[in-house]
Formats: sequence, structure tokens, C-alpha cells
Amino acid sequence: MPELRKDPIVGRWVIISVERSRRPKNIARTKQNSPEPGCLLCLDNSSSLLSEKGILSGLSQSAHDVQWQACSLPDTNPALRMENPPERKGKGVFDTIRGVGTHEIIVEDPERCGNIAHLTEEQIGKVLACFVDRVKKMEGDPRSKYVLIYKDYEPHSKKLCFSQLIAMPVAPKRIREKLIGARNYFQLHERCIFCDIIKQETREQKRIVAENDQFIALVPFASRFPFEILILPKQHSHDIAVLGGNAQASAAAIIKNILLKFEQGLGDPSYSMIFYFSPYIEKKAGHWKTIEEDYHVHIEIIPRLTNIAGFEWGAGFFICPIAPEDAALYLRETEVCRG
Amino acid sequence: MPELRKDPIVGRWVIISVERSRRPKNIARTKQNSPEPGCLLCLDNSSSLLSEKGILSGLSQSAHDVQWQACSLPDTNPALRMENPPERKGKGVFDTIRGVGTHEIIVEDPERCGNIAHLTEEQIGKVLACFVDRVKKMEGDPRSKYVLIYKDYEPHSKKLCFSQLIAMPVAPKRIREKLIGARNYFQLHERCIFCDIIKQETREQKRIVAENDQFIALVPFASRFPFEILILPKQHSHDIAVLGGNAQASAAAIIKNILLKFEQGLGDPSYSMIFYFSPYIEKKAGHWKTIEEDYHVHIEIIPRLTNIAGFEWGAGFFICPIAPEDAALYLRETEVCRG
Repeated sequence: MPELRKDPIVGRWVIISVERSRRPKNIARTKQNSPEPGCLLCLDNSSSLLSEKGILSGLSQSAHDVQWQACSLPDTNPALRMENPPERKGKGVFDTIRGVGTHEIIVEDPERCGNIAHLTEEQIGKVLACFVDRVKKMEGDPRSKYVLIYKDYEPHSKKLCFSQLIAMPVAPKRIREKLIGARNYFQLHERCIFCDIIKQETREQKRIVAENDQFIALVPFASRFPFEILILPKQHSHDIAVLGGNAQASAAAIIKNILLKFEQGLGDPSYSMIFYFSPYIEKKAGHWKTIEEDYHVHIEIIPRLTNIAGFEWGAGFFICPIAPEDAALYLRETEVCRG
Repeated sequence: MPELRKDPIVGRWVIISVERSRRPKNIARTKQNSPEPGCLLCLDNSSSLLSEKGILSGLSQSAHDVQWQACSLPDTNPALRMENPPERKGKGVFDTIRGVGTHEIIVEDPERCGNIAHLTEEQIGKVLACFVDRVKKMEGDPRSKYVLIYKDYEPHSKKLCFSQLIAMPVAPKRIREKLIGARNYFQLHERCIFCDIIKQETREQKRIVAENDQFIALVPFASRFPFEILILPKQHSHDIAVLGGNAQASAAAIIKNILLKFEQGLGDPSYSMIFYFSPYIEKKAGHWKTIEEDYHVHIEIIPRLTNIAGFEWGAGFFICPIAPEDAALYLRETEVCRG
């Protein structure tokens, strides 16, 4: 049974997988574990789940088409499970929560396209609609307090094109910091910090990579990683589901544009994309009445071009090897072929 | 000129290298940048600094022997520089500190031994003495507020065996969190959280990997990474320099033991080792009188056995794929050959 454990010094929760299938020897650096494990969905199955349409539609929870575009499946090797009621325990200085959470795989395309950048804008829009749909469904479960959707892309991977959703009974530390930072700024200025960043970036025109009618993509002023991207809706909203107009289509267009720039300008690097769509822990807690005013949905995309060293891993202190302004200029000038 | 930039939302400082030599094209994933760049100390020099003893001793700032064992050199491609007085600037929502800090390379052995685990305990003790010596020297400079020493090891690297020291005008966020967490616990319990962890771990005997007369090495209860190690002096001390007895020799012995277990039990993985020796930002600030009671020096060693995914990179929320108890048992039972 996976469990959440809290670091007693800094208060950071981590997920500890205590599945018996993962033995120490399997994690040690040996020749056996170097080849890619293949498609995640096939890991624990002799035949592919996806090749058996019957199983797939049986598991599908949010297929948007009869000819489905994106669907969510329970992870076959989940980091968390929602089977049990939450069980909080303490022993001495150590705190634990057992057995609560959800881990889903969101398959973005029935074809093995590999890179979401090669889907059409319409298809990416449907994937985003599936994300929003799953986040909304999770909000209904009182056991989960935060839902994070993220995607890890590896070039030349034989895996399906998929994202992952984790719903958990605590908010990750980094996310709590964002919520608190945004709230503190609002209390001081009565303005949303994200909106102020958009205004300043639009004025300075130094770190913007792309924009369209509803979204803006920029390299953050204090980037942790080279070519890190922050995508924001221009109109203030704490919830992507309430953004009006063709918000999901606009978001899809800017995501596709950035990912094609990565592929064609940066040599198709691995990347991680994280969707900060869900601020609802605070809505539930009911403490912070200003959440709708101070939080602003956003997406981070981080190409993995440099190695993370001890300084970053251990101390959480990042050295970014190029200026965000240079990175933004380079990506802005990277023209992409959409063929 | 490198500069420090502050994330306006979460308050995290990052170092932005804006050297002209690093152009975006050089960071993009191309075939040209895949080979290892060779010895760091030789990067900007046609001949090796170390092959010219004259140059070396000219730069050496803390050679402990005439036949030097460990010495510190200014980094030839520094992330920070101490040349100028600190210049704090704000522009709109963005804060910057320019031109302050020190980045040093601490060479651990004049021979190209590759792995510090192969040095004798006496030699590792001398390296630790050099670290302590450099931290003390840095404390004297009012421009620096925190000093972090860390080591990144890569197997089969042709680089010298070295660690890095960064002295900076702000404390990294993760370190500030440790200091605040330790202080909050002390205020509540009037006990050191690290001492309480040692007591509980000694009682439970589940996560201890090794111990000797003065030090204990354990896998943290809420490990972020598989086989992560925390090394603590058993006797409370906020400052390794004031630990009595043969503290540096005991620390050296337990470090060597753990690193040999990594090499022989985990297949010689890359690792990062971070030395949390310096709590002196708080001493300087003078706000927290309890720093000597509530902070406890420690060392973290993190083998790099798994890939960091979007979840960890982006959200700072870690999934550890094995139970710390299993990792500790495995390492405890790994017998090492010291030959």
C-alpha cells in the first residue's frame, strides 16, 4: 500500500511506494534496468490494454467521442490509491497518511503518435477538455485535496502519448507556496501577482515567446531551467473551466506552438509539462475567501536540456545557465513548420 | 555578470548566468554538446592548472600540507563572483541582486583518483577540514549570508575529484525552510528536531545504515529519492567546527563507508553529497538567539538511480519508489571491501 510521509523538518510530503514488486536490487544501477521498460500501459499486462478495445472502453471514464480522442485509465502501477478512507497516523516525530489518492493515466491519442505536438490544435483542445473534466470530477471527492496533471515527454519513446493525473489528500509543498505567495501579494496590493507579471512582461517585451487572443507564453524572469516556459491566460481566472470564449482552443494553439519550437529549435528534448489547473484545496478549506481573486491558472513547460546537479537536487537552489531574455529571443525567433 | 533573481510568487532565488559564452544554441540538444567536457579545471585553459604546480600553489588558499591534500581554487567559470559590492535592485514585481557571491572548486586529491570513496579515511578527514576552513573564512565576509558545499560524482568521469563551494548573499529557500522548521520545533518542544530524529531512529532500528562513535547514517523516514542518506553527528551541534573529539575522522569514516556501499551495492551510481555545515546567516542576522540549540549540522548523500519526472521537477512533490526501511536494510547488509 503506497503511503504519504511528511518530512518532520521542512513539512514536505512525499509519496513512498512500498509495493513489494519494487525491491532494492531492482533499483540499484545494473545493466538489467537500463533498457526502456516499454509502454507504461503494457507493463503489467502481457497484451496491450489498448489493443483490446473492449477493456479500454470498460475502463474509460471520460471519453469525449465515440471514436475517443483522450481517455483516462487507472494507472496499472499507481503511486496512490483511492480504495480506502484516509488514515492519518503519527509516531514520534513522523506523520503518515495511508491509502488515499488517485493516479490515472490520460491517453491523448489512440494512435501511437509519440509527441503531443503532432496532434492538431483541435485534438490538443480535446485533451485539455479531458483534463478539465477529470479535475472537476476529482473535486467532488472529499478525500482528495489537490489534483495535479503532468506530462513527461521522451523523444523516440515507443510509449503511448499520455499524461498523468495524481489526486492527493494534501497539497504539495511547492503548490502551497504558490497559493500562499499569490495570496500574500493580493493582500498587500489587491491585485493578482500573475496579472501584474503579464502586464510587466507585455510592457517590457523581453521574455515573451508567443501570444494569441487569450494566452501568453513567456520565459519566467527567475527561470530555474534554460528555456523554461510559463503559459498564462491573459484574462484573470482561478479556474480554467470558467474561462470564456474559445479558451481551450487558444491554450491548445499556444501549447502546440511552444512544443514545436522545442522540437525544431532545441533538438527535440525531453520535457515536462505541468498543469496548475486546480486551486480547490483552498476553496474547500474555506479559509481564504480571496482565492478567486488571487490565484491564476497556469501551465509550466520545462525542457530537460541540462543535468540537475547536487546544488539543485539537494538544496533546491537553481543555477540557470542562460539569461531568460536570451532564451525567449531564441524561441521567439524559432520559426516552426506545422506540417 | 551572473545575477541572483527572485521568483515573485514563491520567493525562491535562482542564479542566472548571463555570461556571453553560453548562447542558447549551445544549450539546445545537439550532437555537439553530448560528449563530456573533460576536467572542469582545464576547461578554459590549454594546459592543466594542476600539472603546473606553480600556478596551483599560487591559487591555493587553504592547502593543509606542503604536499597538499585538498585545496580550493576559484572556479574558472563561476556561477557567482565576489568582485563587487552587492547591488540590490527592483523593477516592478522583479527583484535582483547583482555581482555578489563566491564559487570555488575544492580539489580533493592531487592524483586523479576519480572517487572520493577510494581516498583513505585520513585523506577524507583532511578534505572535511578544508571544507570547515573555507566555511569559516567565508563567514568573515559580510557580503555572504550562506555557504553551501556540495559534490557531484559521476562514475568513469575523467574529471578530477572535486567539490564545489558557493557563498551567496541570500540563503537558498530549502535551507531557510530547514532553519525555520528546526526553530519552530524547538520553540514548541525545547528540543532539537534532529536530536529527536536520532533518538527515534535509534529506538526503532529500521532506517539506520551505519554508525560509529560520533556519527549516524540513516535513510530518512520521508526520503525523496531511493537510498537517500542523512548523516548526523550524534552529539548536538550547530557547527561542525565545535564538535569535539575526532569528529572529522569519524565523519570521514562514515562517509567512506556509505560511498563504498553505494559503489559496491548499488552499482557505482552518480551521487550528490551536500554539506549543511553553515547556519551562520541566522547568527549574523541576530534574530534567532536559539540557533545554537535548534540547528544541527548534517550531510545528505543522494544517489541518482531514478529519473526525475515532471511531478518532481515541476511541483517539487517526490515519489520514492522503494520504502526507506527496505533501502536501509539493503545498504546495511551490503558488506564492503575496503581494498
